[in-house]
Amino acid sequence: MKRPWRVGFQGERGAFHEIAAGKLVPRRRELIPLPNFRALFHALSTRKIDYAVVAIENTLVGSIHENYDLLLKYHLPILKETKVRIVHSLIAPPRVPFKSIRKVYSQSVALGQCMKFFDKNKRIEPTPFYDTAGSVKMILEKKLSDAAAIASEAAAALYGGRILKRDIGDHKQNYTRFFLLSHPSMAKSSPPGTKTSIAFVTRNISGALFRCVSVFALRDINLTKIESRPLQGRPWEYLFYLDFIGNPASPSVRNALNNMAEITEFLRILGCYSIVS
Amino acid sequence: MKRPWRVGFQGERGAFHEIAAGKLVPRRRELIPLPNFRALFHALSTRKIDYAVVAIENTLVGSIHENYDLLLKYHLPILKETKVRIVHSLIAPPRVPFKSIRKVYSQSVALGQCMKFFDKNKRIEPTPFYDTAGSVKMILEKKLSDAAAIASEAAAALYGGRILKRDIGDHKQNYTRFFLLSHPSMAKSSPPGTKTSIAFVTRNISGALFRCVSVFALRDINLTKIESRPLQGRPWEYLFYLDFIGNPASPSVRNALNNMAEITEFLRILGCYSIVS
Repeated sequence: MKRPWRVGFQGERGAFHEIAAGKLVPRRRELIPLPNFRALFHALSTRKIDYAVVAIENTLVGSIHENYDLLLKYHLPILKETKVRIVHSLIAPPRVPFKSIRKVYSQSVALGQCMKFFDKNKRIEPTPFYDTAGSVKMILEKKLSDAAAIASEAAAALYGGRILKRDIGDHKQNYTRFFLLSHPSMAKSSPPGTKTSIAFVTRNISGALFRCVSVFALRDINLTKIESRPLQGRPWEYLFYLDFIGNPASPSVRNALNNMAEITEFLRILGCYSIVS
Repeated sequence: MKRPWRVGFQGERGAFHEIAAGKLVPRRRELIPLPNFRALFHALSTRKIDYAVVAIENTLVGSIHENYDLLLKYHLPILKETKVRIVHSLIAPPRVPFKSIRKVYSQSVALGQCMKFFDKNKRIEPTPFYDTAGSVKMILEKKLSDAAAIASEAAAALYGGRILKRDIGDHKQNYTRFFLLSHPSMAKSSPPGTKTSIAFVTRNISGALFRCVSVFALRDINLTKIESRPLQGRPWEYLFYLDFIGNPASPSVRNALNNMAEITEFLRILGCYSIVS
């Protein structure tokens, strides 16, 4: 039997990234937690891991800009994308009843997404911690008798926590989109993609963005997202990230990208990938 | 003599916001520090203050999305914009020499913008604190003998700190763009603006963004920025923030905005404002 794929992700075991990892690499995977996104990209570029699972945007919070910046810095192709519904649950150590809870630990973004719960339970103090699943691990290791954590149900199962309340998030339409990245040497054997992400910098001409967007519109290529980021060292100029439906191997997308090369000063294909539902 | 204008901003006195406030409201101002951006918008909407100074984007970090979201939630017109160069200085209590420094406090973004300094001085630990100027205030109040802070020179002067090193940021092209917001009842008397910010949601049709960008390109109206934000409750749909040069009172901009109203499902002018250099 071959060795399992080493699949890196950011945070502690039991985080939402791990649910995405299960969808993106369904078999023969060994999960490798890494302390932050920078370490994750570095581990993949030096082949300490075979794949990286990276959160790229959330439907409530928006884009995870750090990862857009890292996609550009490292040349690690996107192989797949998937979406995971973020279900926040209140998790306590076994035998700690809800009425004893005074503090709830979680990552600050997760706490911010459960404000209705805190408004209803004024005696409970939201307490920022570095990671959702890490909060569950901590309250169980320290055997806290007045604390709970907000994290995924998977984190409760993994660390032996008890779910006091399920799905306490303010908004049910809370999804995170994840990319599966691989090393360039492995990308060639992947299945044909249906969606493409590019990064570009327009030339400093009038109507520059209009020209870039036209390239796709004139060929009936659907854009699914556009995002701008500041260009370091060039104040008030921007780099754009664009997603569209199509594969650079098809004639219309190939023509569109050739057209983009003419009217941009920088253009890179970040990946053409398949969608895992 | 009339009472001074009450100018609110986020953070402690001596922060970069205060430099912006000096440019935006040059005379008769009373500075009112508020704990966070939400409190700042609330204070202006309830007329506890006359103006709010709000950071909207930084050339290294990008947009301050919380404030884009708050611009939409509150109907507070933008009157002016200005840009401030962010100069990070190392500030210690008087008589604390550089060689004694072991910890440097500042807001985490400011610390992250001075990584070369920390790489060169390995014995010094970067320590996140809630505010740049607030760090100066804290190390002086506590009379720390082994600590410094990273903040503006104005913060050093205000709290009586000593500047050990000037301009220690990694990138010199570090600017923050600020808006001056007012209450709708006061906006009418402001000078004619040269730049306009709008927010819009495209209709769910193919080439929707192309159509919106064309509206401006076809009238030679220059776009200076486009930014997308997730629409709450509608996963993978976006609201766009767009800045352009022009005034809605001019015929071409008026026509462009009428055209936008036809092809968007939501459109709002956030403000037409003058640029203070």
